[in-house]
Parts: sequence; structure tokens; C-alpha cells
Amino acid sequence: MRVFGIDPGSERTGYGCLETDGSRHRLVVCGALSTTAATSFPDRLLAIHAGLAELLAAHRPDCVAIENIFHARNVRSALKLGHARGVALLAASGAGVPIVEYSPAEVKRAVVGFGRAEKHQVGEMVKLLLGLDVVPAPHDVADALAVAICHVHSARSPAIEALSAQKPTTSLRSWRHYRA
Amino acid sequence: MRVFGIDPGSERTGYGCLETDGSRHRLVVCGALSTTAATSFPDRLLAIHAGLAELLAAHRPDCVAIENIFHARNVRSALKLGHARGVALLAASGAGVPIVEYSPAEVKRAVVGFGRAEKHQVGEMVKLLLGLDVVPAPHDVADALAVAICHVHSARSPAIEALSAQKPTTSLRSWRHYRA
Repeated sequence: MRVFGIDPGSERTGYGCLETDGSRHRLVVCGALSTTAATSFPDRLLAIHAGLAELLAAHRPDCVAIENIFHARNVRSALKLGHARGVALLAASGAGVPIVEYSPAEVKRAVVGFGRAEKHQVGEMVKLLLGLDVVPAPHDVADALAVAICHVHSARSPAIEALSAQKPTTSLRSWRHYRA
Repeated sequence: MRVFGIDPGSERTGYGCLETDGSRHRLVVCGALSTTAATSFPDRLLAIHAGLAELLAAHRPDCVAIENIFHARNVRSALKLGHARGVALLAASGAGVPIVEYSPAEVKRAVVGFGRAEKHQVGEMVKLLLGLDVVPAPHDVADALAVAICHVHSARSPAIEALSAQKPTTSLRSWRHYRA
């Protein structure tokens, strides 16, 4: 199974693709799509969309994992984040790749073991679980890999296997599965 | 000049294209891109983007006018609105059409005459200014036409003409001009 994680942001969008045989995970590619401060906002969205579309076409993942966001510092940052996340979902949807969403707490629980883990703990665990030499940086890259790992871990449980077979159960309320 | 107004929303996105010779405005096309409640959120974004891209290619406007949003009921609705607005901006940017943004108060002031006008007053003035038989409905369509009219009215002022000639002035702080 090949999972492509995305951590969207209007200034920088982290991504990370990994492959798993069920027990061991291998990093396929990771990085960040950045734009300069001089880039207009619509052009930033264009860069995020084009970049992700190209990566998805090149690495052909089985699904895209992305954080489900319900909170933000304020309405203004929620609007900005929404724009970036919208074009990220569009890239996945346009590529015909199913989208899975996890809450930030679910990602931390799956990667570190508890839902209130710190950012640097997530980074360290991503490094450990993927057998990397260094913590992926900037943190958007580690966060993108973390949500991909979260899906890999969740997909191993039989309850989720049933879900991926398109039989939604009510026992996993916060797990949402979209098929593009 | 041909202006394409957009009022984005995740459930319904209003659009309206009008043509002006400087004194008289003519409606070219207007409508709403709607999705059913059964449509997944990424598929809604896909429908908004595909619909707008098709309309922009068909009607080839000189610019896209869209409301600049800084407020929302709450963070959650800001996130949702952000997603829809993000793919709308992407459609315009991808089509290479310059984007102009106006605040809701600027739109109301340009169309009705004062910034705190009611929704139905905006609808009535859109009907009057475009010589229509009825108020465009649903209100998203009237709102999309209103922001297009706002740009037409603003673009008549010499200060804005200078701006469209790519010489930003600081006298119009809330007026932002993006070139895709």
C-alpha cells in the first residue's frame, strides 16, 4: 500500500509518500511546496495544486491522507488554511485518489501514542518509524508523513480494513472516507 | 469590458458575467453551481472548480471579481468557505484571468449606495442596474452579479484605471489586484 500524506498551508505545503508491506514502512518521497512572499495568493494556490497534481501523477498512491481540521487560531487563519486545504483536496480528487482524513489527535495518538504529543515528538517518531537519519524538516514535511503513518497504522486494524472495503461502520465516527 | 463575478460557497457557488460599454451593463450569463447533500466534500470542490473553469473558458472575461472575506460566523464555517473560495480562485488563476477583490461593504456601497445595505436591497439594485425582469435567485447569483457590478463601477474611476494599468497606488488600500 502506498499512502501520500499532505499537510496543507498557504505559505508551505508539506507532503510525504510512503510504502508499506504491512509491517515495515519505506519512505518514497517527501518535501515541501513553498512559495515566496512576493507570490500573489491565487498564484500560491496554483503552485500548491500544480505541485500536488504532478506528485500524485508521478507516485500513484493508493490513497491521500490529510488532517481534518476543525480548529484554527482565528477566523482569518481558518480562511487562509481553508483555501490551501481546498486546492489540496481538489488535487487528490482530480487525480481520482481516495481521500482519508484524521483529526490531529488521532495522528498524534497513532504516531506517538498519545493525542497531546508535542510537535518535536511527532518528528522524532516519524524519523524512527521510517528509519531516517534525521527528522524531516521543516515540520510540515514531518506532519505530512505523520498523517500517512497514521493511516497505515489504522488500516492494519480489521475494523478499518472493513471500512476500506467500502462498508462504513459507526464505530469509527471521526474516520471519514471519501472516494474521488 | 467583461467581468465575471463569483460568490463561492461549498453548497452553492453563484456566478454572473456581465459586459459593459462604460455606461450600460448587459447580463451575459448567470447561475449557480449546486451539489446535492449526498456529494462528498472533495467532489463538491471538484464540481465548483470544473464548473467555473468551463464557464471562464466559454465566456472569456477580462477579469474575475470576488468578495474578499475576513469574517465568518465561526472558525468552522470559515474553513468550509475557505475551501470553496480557494478552488474558485484557482479556477480563475488557472484560466489566466486577473482577479479583483472587494470587501462586502465596498460591494454594497457600489451597488446600493451604502455599506450596510440588506441582501434584498442588493438583489433589487442588481435587477434594476442590469434591466432584468426579476431579482436573480438564489441570492448567491445576485451577490455574484453585485461584485461584478462593483468592479465595473470602481473601474470607471480614474484612480482605478491607473491601478488596472498595473501601477498600484496606496490610496485604495482595500482594493487588491492580482494578475494570474
